[in-house]
Amino acid sequence: MAKPVILHPPRNNPPPITLITDFGLSDGYVGAMKGVILDILPWVQVVDITHDIEPQNIRQAAFVLHTVTPHFPECTVHLVVVDPGVGTDRRPIVVYTDHAVYVGPDNGVFSWIYRTERVREIRELTNSYYKRAQVSPTFHGRDVFAPFAAHIAAGAPAPSIGPAVTDPVQFEIPEPIVRANGDIQGQVIHIDSFGNIITNITEEMLIEADNWTFEVAGLMVSSFHQAYGYAEEGQIVALIGSMGYVEIAIRNGHAAHRLGAQVDTPVIARPVS
Amino acid sequence: MAKPVILHPPRNNPPPITLITDFGLSDGYVGAMKGVILDILPWVQVVDITHDIEPQNIRQAAFVLHTVTPHFPECTVHLVVVDPGVGTDRRPIVVYTDHAVYVGPDNGVFSWIYRTERVREIRELTNSYYKRAQVSPTFHGRDVFAPFAAHIAAGAPAPSIGPAVTDPVQFEIPEPIVRANGDIQGQVIHIDSFGNIITNITEEMLIEADNWTFEVAGLMVSSFHQAYGYAEEGQIVALIGSMGYVEIAIRNGHAAHRLGAQVDTPVIARPVS
Amino acid sequence: MAKPVILHPPRNNPPPITLITDFGLSDGYVGAMKGVILDILPWVQVVDITHDIEPQNIRQAAFVLHTVTPHFPECTVHLVVVDPGVGTDRRPIVVYTDHAVYVGPDNGVFSWIYRTERVREIRELTNSYYKRAQVSPTFHGRDVFAPFAAHIAAGAPAPSIGPAVTDPVQFEIPEPIVRANGDIQGQVIHIDSFGNIITNITEEMLIEADNWTFEVAGLMVSSFHQAYGYAEEGQIVALIGSMGYVEIAIRNGHAAHRLGAQVDTPVIARPVS
Repeated sequence: MAKPVILHPPRNNPPPITLITDFGLSDGYVGAMKGVILDILPWVQVVDITHDIEPQNIRQAAFVLHTVTPHFPECTVHLVVVDPGVGTDRRPIVVYTDHAVYVGPDNGVFSWIYRTERVREIRELTNSYYKRAQVSPTFHGRDVFAPFAAHIAAGAPAPSIGPAVTDPVQFEIPEPIVRANGDIQGQVIHIDSFGNIITNITEEMLIEADNWTFEVAGLMVSSFHQAYGYAEEGQIVALIGSMGYVEIAIRNGHAAHRLGAQVDTPVIARPVS
Repeated sequence: MAKPVILHPPRNNPPPITLITDFGLSDGYVGAMKGVILDILPWVQVVDITHDIEPQNIRQAAFVLHTVTPHFPECTVHLVVVDPGVGTDRRPIVVYTDHAVYVGPDNGVFSWIYRTERVREIRELTNSYYKRAQVSPTFHGRDVFAPFAAHIAAGAPAPSIGPAVTDPVQFEIPEPIVRANGDIQGQVIHIDSFGNIITNITEEMLIEADNWTFEVAGLMVSSFHQAYGYAEEGQIVALIGSMGYVEIAIRNGHAAHRLGAQVDTPVIARPVS
Repeated sequence: MAKPVILHPPRNNPPPITLITDFGLSDGYVGAMKGVILDILPWVQVVDITHDIEPQNIRQAAFVLHTVTPHFPECTVHLVVVDPGVGTDRRPIVVYTDHAVYVGPDNGVFSWIYRTERVREIRELTNSYYKRAQVSPTFHGRDVFAPFAAHIAAGAPAPSIGPAVTDPVQFEIPEPIVRANGDIQGQVIHIDSFGNIITNITEEMLIEADNWTFEVAGLMVSSFHQAYGYAEEGQIVALIGSMGYVEIAIRNGHAAHRLGAQVDTPVIARPVS
């Protein structure tokens, strides 16, 4: 592909570029990506979100991205490299939404974005002008995703990136079901690093009753609190977490270990009459 | 409270905002805070100090803050979110001193600052103009502390923040006692991540004698070295640490584990005649 | 030494300063270094490479530096503080090469740089104008290396730093040997945090044959793949890693643990005829 016509000069005030990876921070992998970005766009802010995604856990990365992106400035470029298929023919893509820009592998890691934001267009990262001259088949984070992210933050126009993608890979995000008796049948969608169990039951779904009990992994949780600070040490409570989802938590404890809950474990909310 | 009159435009050169939390970096909690800050003040430098404070260990966070703040530029905004009382009625505050600005919960986390810097004023963070429109009761770091810190770094005047606070919460910081026989009775105030035992006995207190021995957890340490590099592998030594406090350390070993010392363990310094 | 004549004003656009240390991020040690840097040069970008080098593992730090420095902008200042000899008479130095600038202890941590870049000059960090007024014998990272790095990034001229060094400490970096029968006798030079075994056998050395088998710690690896994504779960494969070295890896497994390999373990590449 020919060197693209840049329709406007690189911006003096590029948006920040954030990083989510499963590379950890003990090696130089993340550092190499930061170097590539700063070499192209010296004044951009590179913001570490996390490099401690469980190796190759696409669903975890997708959820963490979902929890942070609403808070960043418009047009922020979010770079997500959790990429079990590196070196195979999975496509590298950029997703432009009405809120932000997402760069990463087309493996489902943007599934939450497709559900919560309006997608403007998706492009495959093919223009070799934006890649490093030599692409290692084991490290597209450094040789493909990082330089594309930097050029996109610098103002590279979408049509110059590569062909449009209309069938991005996405995993199914389960929706809770409301039963005839008013019970809500949901499930666990995330366990955070404190062991808090985050469910797909939202605050809005609970307006039908004044109080609720929750059943998770065979245990009844009848204590519905406003915040961790109100619970007693060791008490299992339900509360509305900071993303608006029902969470099951233990003050100063690891709820997921104690209850044996994991992603996809069923959760039932029962109205208390 | 009404939208405040901003007496001067936001600064073009805001001071850095530093972060100390117990959130870890595996989830999106810290990332969400960074997003909120950058959304308000796009060009501020956000500096990670640590996110690995032990969960809810206010004293550890207070000590780490004490060790870093002298080295940052004047007017730096230090944001500390170690907040077991989130969602209860503990006050969110900002502390202005002659050196810097501190934002966090009023739970004692600024106790070392009150002791080592001159406080100009303390304000409660009440002006809803500086908060996010919706405040989650479980995540004031994102919805209260981060946006206040950004607005303060941007130049929000102190009187617009909220009412003055005159009775901040503080924990007692123990002072060593000098006995009649010249012994100094101190205690452990911090264990660092290498296992070095940091005491509240300072370099200045040791000018009374040429040499000292130290008793910690029943063990006598008679080897007083200038630096780690001079000790033999595995040897237990005392030295003056980088903050000016006496430290008990083992070269390439974990002194606190080996001696069974923890915060508050007594330490006795005895002059050698 | 007298206050130096600064031959040009501090730059408005300083290069980034990167950090590699073995301090971890649980304490305030790295934060204090960042504060010192920003106090001298408020607008510099401070980039964390890693703070999780194994305590005092100079060879690991040297290799990680080698993997990241080619990707950073020219003139970037790389600050490496892995310093078992802190407080002894090992020299603190700055190394200027045709690509970048390196600040740290003269203990071999720049051995890979000496081999891969053209050194212009090396200076000892002696000018007390660039140090902190009080230097703790246990924390040269904060009191010597960080302020020198900031002043150097700000434009301090090389002759003002200190006397020239012509005999820097370096450890030997082993070179593979090609035997009469075509076998290549190399060794392990690094284990990354995923357990991938990185050898000193390069892609270029393998052009002599179409296919190769590799013997590591008594195990024959005959599966030579292009990328992790092509291997089956649990399969031991050899591939060309992102630095151009032969790596032995297990998809979703820890190859070094499984094979019992460590740094210096011999590796033999045998041409397949």
